[in-house]
Amino acid sequence: MDLLVKELYELPVGAPFSGTYVVEHVEIKKHRTGEPFLRLVLSDKSGSFTALWWKPPADADLTQFQKGDVVFVSGRIEYFQGTLQPKLTEIKKLKEGDFKPDKFICQSRYPIEEQFEELLNKIETIKNPYLKVLLEKFFYDDQFVELFLRTPAGKTIHHACIGGLLEHTLSVVEICETVAKRFKSIDRDLLITAAILHDIGKVREYSVNVTIERTDEGLLLGHLYMSCEMVAFKISEIDNFPEDLKTKLLHCILAHHGKYEHGSPKMPKTLEAVTLAYADALDSRVKGFEEFIEKQLGNQKGWTRRHFAFEVPIFFDGEINYEEEGTNL
Amino acid sequence: MDLLVKELYELPVGAPFSGTYVVEHVEIKKHRTGEPFLRLVLSDKSGSFTALWWKPPADADLTQFQKGDVVFVSGRIEYFQGTLQPKLTEIKKLKEGDFKPDKFICQSRYPIEEQFEELLNKIETIKNPYLKVLLEKFFYDDQFVELFLRTPAGKTIHHACIGGLLEHTLSVVEICETVAKRFKSIDRDLLITAAILHDIGKVREYSVNVTIERTDEGLLLGHLYMSCEMVAFKISEIDNFPEDLKTKLLHCILAHHGKYEHGSPKMPKTLEAVTLAYADALDSRVKGFEEFIEKQLGNQKGWTRRHFAFEVPIFFDGEINYEEEGTNL
Amino acid sequence: MDLLVKELYELPVGAPFSGTYVVEHVEIKKHRTGEPFLRLVLSDKSGSFTALWWKPPADADLTQFQKGDVVFVSGRIEYFQGTLQPKLTEIKKLKEGDFKPDKFICQSRYPIEEQFEELLNKIETIKNPYLKVLLEKFFYDDQFVELFLRTPAGKTIHHACIGGLLEHTLSVVEICETVAKRFKSIDRDLLITAAILHDIGKVREYSVNVTIERTDEGLLLGHLYMSCEMVAFKISEIDNFPEDLKTKLLHCILAHHGKYEHGSPKMPKTLEAVTLAYADALDSRVKGFEEFIEKQLGNQKGWTRRHFAFEVPIFFDGEINYEEEGTNL
Amino acid sequence: MDLLVKELYELPVGAPFSGTYVVEHVEIKKHRTGEPFLRLVLSDKSGSFTALWWKPPADADLTQFQKGDVVFVSGRIEYFQGTLQPKLTEIKKLKEGDFKPDKFICQSRYPIEEQFEELLNKIETIKNPYLKVLLEKFFYDDQFVELFLRTPAGKTIHHACIGGLLEHTLSVVEICETVAKRFKSIDRDLLITAAILHDIGKVREYSVNVTIERTDEGLLLGHLYMSCEMVAFKISEIDNFPEDLKTKLLHCILAHHGKYEHGSPKMPKTLEAVTLAYADALDSRVKGFEEFIEKQLGNQKGWTRRHFAFEVPIFFDGEINYEEEGTNL
Amino acid sequence: MDLLVKELYELPVGAPFSGTYVVEHVEIKKHRTGEPFLRLVLSDKSGSFTALWWKPPADADLTQFQKGDVVFVSGRIEYFQGTLQPKLTEIKKLKEGDFKPDKFICQSRYPIEEQFEELLNKIETIKNPYLKVLLEKFFYDDQFVELFLRTPAGKTIHHACIGGLLEHTLSVVEICETVAKRFKSIDRDLLITAAILHDIGKVREYSVNVTIERTDEGLLLGHLYMSCEMVAFKISEIDNFPEDLKTKLLHCILAHHGKYEHGSPKMPKTLEAVTLAYADALDSRVKGFEEFIEKQLGNQKGWTRRHFAFEVPIFFDGEINYEEEGTNL
Amino acid sequence: MDLLVKELYELPVGAPFSGTYVVEHVEIKKHRTGEPFLRLVLSDKSGSFTALWWKPPADADLTQFQKGDVVFVSGRIEYFQGTLQPKLTEIKKLKEGDFKPDKFICQSRYPIEEQFEELLNKIETIKNPYLKVLLEKFFYDDQFVELFLRTPAGKTIHHACIGGLLEHTLSVVEICETVAKRFKSIDRDLLITAAILHDIGKVREYSVNVTIERTDEGLLLGHLYMSCEMVAFKISEIDNFPEDLKTKLLHCILAHHGKYEHGSPKMPKTLEAVTLAYADALDSRVKGFEEFIEKQLGNQKGWTRRHFAFEVPIFFDGEINYEEEGTNL
Repeated sequence: MDLLVKELYELPVGAPFSGTYVVEHVEIKKHRTGEPFLRLVLSDKSGSFTALWWKPPADADLTQFQKGDVVFVSGRIEYFQGTLQPKLTEIKKLKEGDFKPDKFICQSRYPIEEQFEELLNKIETIKNPYLKVLLEKFFYDDQFVELFLRTPAGKTIHHACIGGLLEHTLSVVEICETVAKRFKSIDRDLLITAAILHDIGKVREYSVNVTIERTDEGLLLGHLYMSCEMVAFKISEIDNFPEDLKTKLLHCILAHHGKYEHGSPKMPKTLEAVTLAYADALDSRVKGFEEFIEKQLGNQKGWTRRHFAFEVPIFFDGEINYEEEGTNL
Repeated sequence: MDLLVKELYELPVGAPFSGTYVVEHVEIKKHRTGEPFLRLVLSDKSGSFTALWWKPPADADLTQFQKGDVVFVSGRIEYFQGTLQPKLTEIKKLKEGDFKPDKFICQSRYPIEEQFEELLNKIETIKNPYLKVLLEKFFYDDQFVELFLRTPAGKTIHHACIGGLLEHTLSVVEICETVAKRFKSIDRDLLITAAILHDIGKVREYSVNVTIERTDEGLLLGHLYMSCEMVAFKISEIDNFPEDLKTKLLHCILAHHGKYEHGSPKMPKTLEAVTLAYADALDSRVKGFEEFIEKQLGNQKGWTRRHFAFEVPIFFDGEINYEEEGTNL
Repeated sequence: MDLLVKELYELPVGAPFSGTYVVEHVEIKKHRTGEPFLRLVLSDKSGSFTALWWKPPADADLTQFQKGDVVFVSGRIEYFQGTLQPKLTEIKKLKEGDFKPDKFICQSRYPIEEQFEELLNKIETIKNPYLKVLLEKFFYDDQFVELFLRTPAGKTIHHACIGGLLEHTLSVVEICETVAKRFKSIDRDLLITAAILHDIGKVREYSVNVTIERTDEGLLLGHLYMSCEMVAFKISEIDNFPEDLKTKLLHCILAHHGKYEHGSPKMPKTLEAVTLAYADALDSRVKGFEEFIEKQLGNQKGWTRRHFAFEVPIFFDGEINYEEEGTNL
Repeated sequence: MDLLVKELYELPVGAPFSGTYVVEHVEIKKHRTGEPFLRLVLSDKSGSFTALWWKPPADADLTQFQKGDVVFVSGRIEYFQGTLQPKLTEIKKLKEGDFKPDKFICQSRYPIEEQFEELLNKIETIKNPYLKVLLEKFFYDDQFVELFLRTPAGKTIHHACIGGLLEHTLSVVEICETVAKRFKSIDRDLLITAAILHDIGKVREYSVNVTIERTDEGLLLGHLYMSCEMVAFKISEIDNFPEDLKTKLLHCILAHHGKYEHGSPKMPKTLEAVTLAYADALDSRVKGFEEFIEKQLGNQKGWTRRHFAFEVPIFFDGEINYEEEGTNL
Repeated sequence: MDLLVKELYELPVGAPFSGTYVVEHVEIKKHRTGEPFLRLVLSDKSGSFTALWWKPPADADLTQFQKGDVVFVSGRIEYFQGTLQPKLTEIKKLKEGDFKPDKFICQSRYPIEEQFEELLNKIETIKNPYLKVLLEKFFYDDQFVELFLRTPAGKTIHHACIGGLLEHTLSVVEICETVAKRFKSIDRDLLITAAILHDIGKVREYSVNVTIERTDEGLLLGHLYMSCEMVAFKISEIDNFPEDLKTKLLHCILAHHGKYEHGSPKMPKTLEAVTLAYADALDSRVKGFEEFIEKQLGNQKGWTRRHFAFEVPIFFDGEINYEEEGTNL
Repeated sequence: MDLLVKELYELPVGAPFSGTYVVEHVEIKKHRTGEPFLRLVLSDKSGSFTALWWKPPADADLTQFQKGDVVFVSGRIEYFQGTLQPKLTEIKKLKEGDFKPDKFICQSRYPIEEQFEELLNKIETIKNPYLKVLLEKFFYDDQFVELFLRTPAGKTIHHACIGGLLEHTLSVVEICETVAKRFKSIDRDLLITAAILHDIGKVREYSVNVTIERTDEGLLLGHLYMSCEMVAFKISEIDNFPEDLKTKLLHCILAHHGKYEHGSPKMPKTLEAVTLAYADALDSRVKGFEEFIEKQLGNQKGWTRRHFAFEVPIFFDGEINYEEEGTNL
C-alpha cells in the first residue's frame, strides 16, 4: 500500500496506512518527560502533512533523517486540533531505486517522447551547417538528452515539472517561427538555434530528484552563463565555426532575459536576440499564469491570491482541459 | 516635374527643378537691408532640405505658410557651405486634392487589401456570437474601415506608415493564435477579438494627412482609453451582451501595455490579457528594431546609433528583403 | 442581546452571550473521533474572535455558512490558551433585513446629510452650463446618490467607511478651491467639476454590504476607467456638449492618480489635472495617516508599526478629537 | 536710451541703439588676419541676442568681461543670416549701483508688501509661545527679512523671481490652513510654523543679483539642511524650547520633499510633515506648470514642448490674467 | 546562578534554574477559570525562550512588567509540544546596577581600548589645524567618548554591538587611507576627518541599554543630519574656522549614504565625499555579510536564507576565526 | 614637423604646418560650382579641429579616407568665423608603423613597468596552488601580457588610457588587501585572484589603436562574460582544479558589477564577491571623478558641468599633482 497524500484525507480516524514520502522538514523534539520524538513534514506531488514518530525505540538513530530523504512510513490516521497528524509506528529510509520518483514530482502534460520528436524535427529545418552540427552535438548525445528531458524550466514560477524544459523550449520555438515567417530580415536559422539552446544551462542549474532544487552552481552562476559556457566549449570542437556567428548566438542566449533587472548582462541588440527575449517572456508568463490558476483554483472559478512575482491576483472563469491535446498539436 | 527630395541631390548645380513638399518649418528672416525673406525646411517621405525664398515680391503674404502645409515650389539647385540650399523662384500653397498624399507618408510593405482580407478571415473564425457581432459592427462599417486602413500604429517607434495599424494588428493576431493553440485554457475567441480591437483607438489618436500627428484627444486620453470607450458604446448597441464578457474584453484592452509604467491603468490579470500584452510587446519591439535598422543603416551592415527608446544601439549584418512576401503570407 | 465583539472580552468565563456577526472565515474540521465540527472567525466593526461549533446536531448542514454571511450565534464564554474562544450552542444564518448593517461597517465621522448639502452647494457655484447640467444629472439622480453616499473611498488605506467617498470628495474640492483662488489661470469650473466626479467609478468598484469588497469589475477595470465611462455616457445625453470640454474633463479624471505607477494611463498635462492629482494625493495621504494612527494607537501616543503602503512607521503625540466638528465646518 | 532686448527687434537695420545687459557668454575670437574680436551673448529679462565687438581698440583689455557682468553697450542694428547680430562701437563694464537690477530679473506678480503683511498676519495666529518667538526671531529681523523678500523659490522650475520665496511660502501656508481646518488631529501651530520656515535655507542657496545662481553652499548642502541648521541655531537662543517640539519641527522641514528621490533624508512620519510635503508639492507643481505655459505659449493656446522635469508637454487653452488679483486676495 | 539562555537547553526536564533576562514581549492571558497568568518572551544575547508565570499570587501586579525590563526569574525546565517553555515560580524586576549589561548585548570582537588608541593615532596624522582642533573637541571630551565607545553602528544590519561604531569608523578610515595614498588629488586631511566624524550622530540615534533601540530623534531626523548639526555647533566654537572647509566637511557627511534612495539629501560631489561614501558602503556591506553568515550558519557551511536587505542568500564555506586578530592589527 | 593640435592654436594666421592626425569624421561636400571638396575633423590626444581639402586634384580618390584612419596633412593656418579651420594642400593616408600611436592616445600616469612588477608581486603572495597556476598561465603568457598592458579600463568614464586596466586592477587589489586584513573570514587568495582577473575580458572588449573602440564582441557579450569564458578555458587546462573553487571564482567575476542594473547577471552572494564588487565601484568612481575634474577644469577650480553618468556636477578646489608619485608607491 503506497497511498498518495491526498488519499490519506479520505481515510477514517484510526485507519492504518502506509506510503513513501519525501521529508520536507524534520525536527527532534522532547516530550515533557525529556524523551525525544520526531516531528516530520512529509510530502508527495499531491500534497503534504505533518507526522509524529511519537515513541521511537530507545536505540533508534533519530538524526539519520534529512530534508530530501525518501522514507517509507506506516501508522494510523489521527487528527490534532482538526488537522491530519498521524502517529507513525514505523519509518524507514529508502535508497534510490527503492521507490518510483514519479510519485514525487509532476510531469509535463504533453507526452515527452512526442515533444522531443517535434524538437528533432525543428533541428532538421536548420540549413546553416555550423548551427546544425552544433545542435546535433547536443541533441544526439544520449547523456545530455537524458538530462535535458528530465529538467524542469523552473522551480516555482513556470514549467516546474519533469519535461518542463522541453515543453518550454518547444513553445518558444513555435512563437519564434511565427515571428520569423512575417519578418524577412530575421536570420531564421540563428533564431531557431538560439531558441533551442537558450535554456540548456538549466540542466546544471536544477537538480531533479524527488524534489527540484537549485544547485550551488546554479545559484552562483545562473543558467544564462552556463548555457553560454556549454555552447562555447562545444563550438570549440567544431572546425571553422565562424567567430561572428558564435558571438551572435551567445548574444542571443546572454540577452534572453531582456533586461538587466531580469539578470541579463546585455540587453538584446539584434533582431534575433530581441525576438527570443520576448518569445521567452511570453511563454513563461502565460505558463506561469496557467500553473498558478490550476494550483490555486483547482477546478473552481474566480480569483487566485496575489502572485508573489507577477504582483497581481489572477482571474479565471474558464476550463483547464488538456485531455486531447496530444493528438492535434 | 515633381521630384522626390532624394532626386534633387542628383541634379547639377544650377539645374531648374520643381516639386511638391510639406513645410516642416518656416521662418520669416531679414536681409541686411531689412527686407524680409523666407527660410523653409521642406520634406517628402524620401528626405528633407532647406530652401530660401530669397526675393519674394513686395506684396507677397509671407505669413500664409504654416507647418504642415503642402506647397508647390520651383527654383534652381544651389549649395551653401557644401549643403543643398536652393533659392526658390516660386512657392504656392496647395489644397487637399491638388497633390498625392502618398508622396509624403510611406505605406506598409504588405499589400493593404490582402492584409485586410486576412483580418476578415480571422473574424470568420470567431464562434462566440456576441464577439462576432461586435467585430462586424466595426469591420463592416465602411467609414471605420477607411479610417482603420490608413492609420499607422505609431508616430516614430513602430509601424509609422499608412496601413501600419492593420499590419501590427494582424501580426499580433498571428502570435496570439500560435499561443492559443498550445494553451487550451485560453478563451481563443476572447483573445482574438481583443487582439483585433486592442489598438482601434489609434484611429482617433493619430491624424494622418501629409504627416502623422498626435491629436489633442490622443495626447490627453490615449488610445487605451479611447479603444475601450469605442468598444463600450458599440456593446451598448448589442442586446444582451454579457456583462462579464464586456468586462473581460475591456480588461484585455486596458491592460495591453502590460505595466503601469507603460501606461496601462491595470496590469494583466487574465490569461487572455497577459497573452495579448506580451504578443503586442513582441511585435512592436521587433518591428521597431527592423524599422530603425532600415532607417539608420539603409543597405549597410553594422551598428545603428543608440535607439532613444530601446536604449541600445542595434547590430545588423543581414538583409532586409520584402520583395516577394506579398505572395506567400 | 446583541453584543459587540469588544463587549465579549468584558464578560467572565462561563457567561452566556449572543450576537450577530459576519463570518470572516469558516472551516469544517474533524474531532479525533472523526466527527465534524465548525471553526469560525466572526467579526463586527469592533473586532473579531474565533468560535467553535463543537457539537453540531448530526443532521446540521455545515456547508451552508460562507465567508460574508451574517449569523446569529449564542454560546458561553471560554478561553483556550489564554485566548477568547467560545463554544457555540446555536448558529443561524440571517437574511438581509434581519440585521442592522451599521453594526458591521463604520461610518464617516462627519454627518453625511450635512456633507452632502455642502456638496450640492459647491455644484451651485458652477457657472459653465454644460458642466452644471452634467453634475446635476448625477447628483439629482436618487439612485446614484443613494449609492454614492454609502460608498467608501477605499478598502483599507483611506476613508474605508460608509460616506467615505463623500467625505474625500468634499475635502478634495476644498483644497482645489483654495488653489483656484490663488491661480487665476485655472478654469475653476472645470477643476471643481473634475474634483466632484473624479472618483464616482468607486460606486462600481466597491460593493458595500456588511464588509467592503472590491468587485470583479473594480479589479479588472478600476475606478479611473469606470468614472470616465460613466461621464462619457452621461455626456452623450447632453446636446452640444463641447468635444474639447469633454476631453479636458476626462483627462482630469484619467490622470488624477498623477503617475503611471499609481495607475493613471496619462500623466496630468493641464493645470486643472495637475491640481486635482496633487489635491487628491494630499487628502488621501493625510486621511490615511490619521486612520492608521487611530487604528494602531487608539488613545495612546508614540509610534505605529510600519505602514505597508506608506513605508514608514508614524509618530503621533497629539489627540484625535472630532466631537464638535459637525457644527463649525 | 536703455532698450529692452525685445525692443531691439523693432528697430530698422542700421539704427543706433544702446542699453545695459548681462553678459551670458563671452569669447575672444580671431579675424582671418589674426586680430582678436569679441563675441558676446547679452541678455535682460526680456530675451537675449548675440553681439560682436568687431574692432576693439588695440589697447583694449578683452579679458575684463566675465559671465555675469553688467555692461553698457552701444552700436548699430545688423542682421547676419537673418539673425539679429549688431556690431558694437562701445562696451563698458558697470558697477553695482550704476544700473537697475529689476531690468534683469523678474518679480512676483503679487505685491511683495501686501504678501509680506499677509505672512505677518499668519504669524499672529500662532498660539504656541515657543513657536511664535521662533518665528518672530526670523521675521522681525530686518536683515533676514530683506534677504527673504528678494529670494526666489527656484532657479528654473518654479517661482524663479524676486519675491518668489514669499509667494510660495504664503501659498503653502494657505493650503495647510485648509487641511488643518478639516483634520482636527493636526497640530495647527506646528504645521503653520513649519510651512513658514520650510524653505528659509533658500536665502543661502540662491544668490540673486542680475541673475539667479546657486551658491556653492547651496549645491553642496541644500536648503533642507540649511533651513534646519538656521532653525536649530535660533532655537538654541530660546530658553526652554522643548526638545521634542524642536525634533518635530526639524522633521517637518527635513522631510518636506516627501521622498528620498527628491532629496529628503527622511520620509514624512507625522501628520504635520506629510501635510507640508504634499502642500509644498502641490503649490510648486501648479506654479511650475503656470510659469512654463506663460514662457512657452505667451498669449497663445495649445501645447508647450515637453517639460524637462515634469516629463510631459502641457496643454493650455485658457487665459493668464493677473491684472486684478492684488485686491481680492 | 545566572544561566545563559543557551545553557537552559542543556538542562534535563524538571531541573530548577534561575537567571536574569530582558523582557522582549509580555502578555496577560486568562486561564479557563478566568484567572490571569503571564506569558513572557525572555532573552539575553545568546537567545530567547517563552516562559509562563502560571500561578501568580492573587495580589501580584501583573502590569508592572514592560518590554525592555530586566527581570530575575526562577522556575523549572518544562517543554510544551516539544518546545522549551518553563513555568516560573518567581519573577522580579531589576533596576539598573543590579545586573550586568554585557549579558544582554554583544560587543565588538576587537578590543575597544586598542581600537580607540588606533583612532587617536589617526587623529594625530591630521595636519590641518582647524580639522585637528575640531576632532580633538570631540575625542578628548570624556562624555562624548564614553557614549561613542558604547554605540553600535547599526541595530540589525551591521555592527550591531557595543563598540560597533568605533570598529566601523576605524575600518572606513583604513580604506580611505588606502585610496588617498593612490589618489594625490584627494585632500587627505579632509577625507580622514570626514571618515572619523561621518557617523557620530549615531550616539543620538541609538539608545543602548540592554537592547539597542532607535530614539525618536533618530527616527525623525537620522544620524546624517544629527552628525552635521553636532559638527556645525562645535565649529561655531572655533575661531576663524574657514567657511568653505566647513561646507566641504558637512557635504562629505551629508552625502555619505551616496544616493538619495539611501537617505542622503545630496549626492557626493567632491572627491572626498565620493570616496567616503563608497568606503562606508564597502565596510558596511562586508560586515553585514559576515554578521549574517555567523548568525545564520554558526559554524556550518552552505547557504543562509535570503537577507532581507541585501536581497540574496549568502554562501559561505570558510571559517570565521578572530582568535588572534587583536595582536596584529 | 609633426605638431600637436594644441600647438596649431599658437601659430599665426597664414603659417604653414604639418602633422599626423586621426580622422574623426569625413564628408564629401560640393562647392557652389558642383566641384567636390573634403571636410574633415582631425584629432590627436591634445584636441581636434576642422580642416578643408578645398581643391583636391581632379583625379584624387576622395572616398579613400575613413573614420579611424591616420593621415599626414600639410596646409596653412586659417580661421573661419573665429574658429581654426585650415585649408589643406596635402593629405596622405598612413599605414600602421608609419606613425607613433602614442601621439593619439594618452597613457596611465603611473609607470607601466613598475605597476606591472607590483602586480607580479601580488601574484607571488597567493598560496593556493591552483589559483597561483591559473594566474601564472595568464601573466607569464607574453602575448596576453602585451595586450593586457595596453588595454584601458574604459572608453570614457574611467581609466581611458593605455595602461588603464593595469592601474585599475592594481588599485582594486590594494583595496581588497586592506579589507582582507581586517576581515579574517575572507578567503584572501580567492579575493586577490578574482581582483586580478575580474576585468581581463576587456582585452577583447576594447580595441586600442589610435582611438579606443568597443569591439562587436565587446558590445554583444561584454567583459563580464568574456573574462569568465577566458578563465573557464584556462581552468580546463589545469588538472584537478577544484570544481567549487572554479564556481566561486567565476561568481566573483560575474557578480563584480554588484547589481543587475549594472550588468551583473548575479548579485554578489559571497564575502569575496561582495568585497570585490564594492572595491571595484570605489576605485572606478573615484578615478572617474578625478579624470572628469582634470578634463573639465584643467588647472582651474570650481565646478565641472554635470557628469552624464554620475548625474552631478563635481566641485574641486585642490590640486592634481602626480609629478612624484612614481617613486613612493
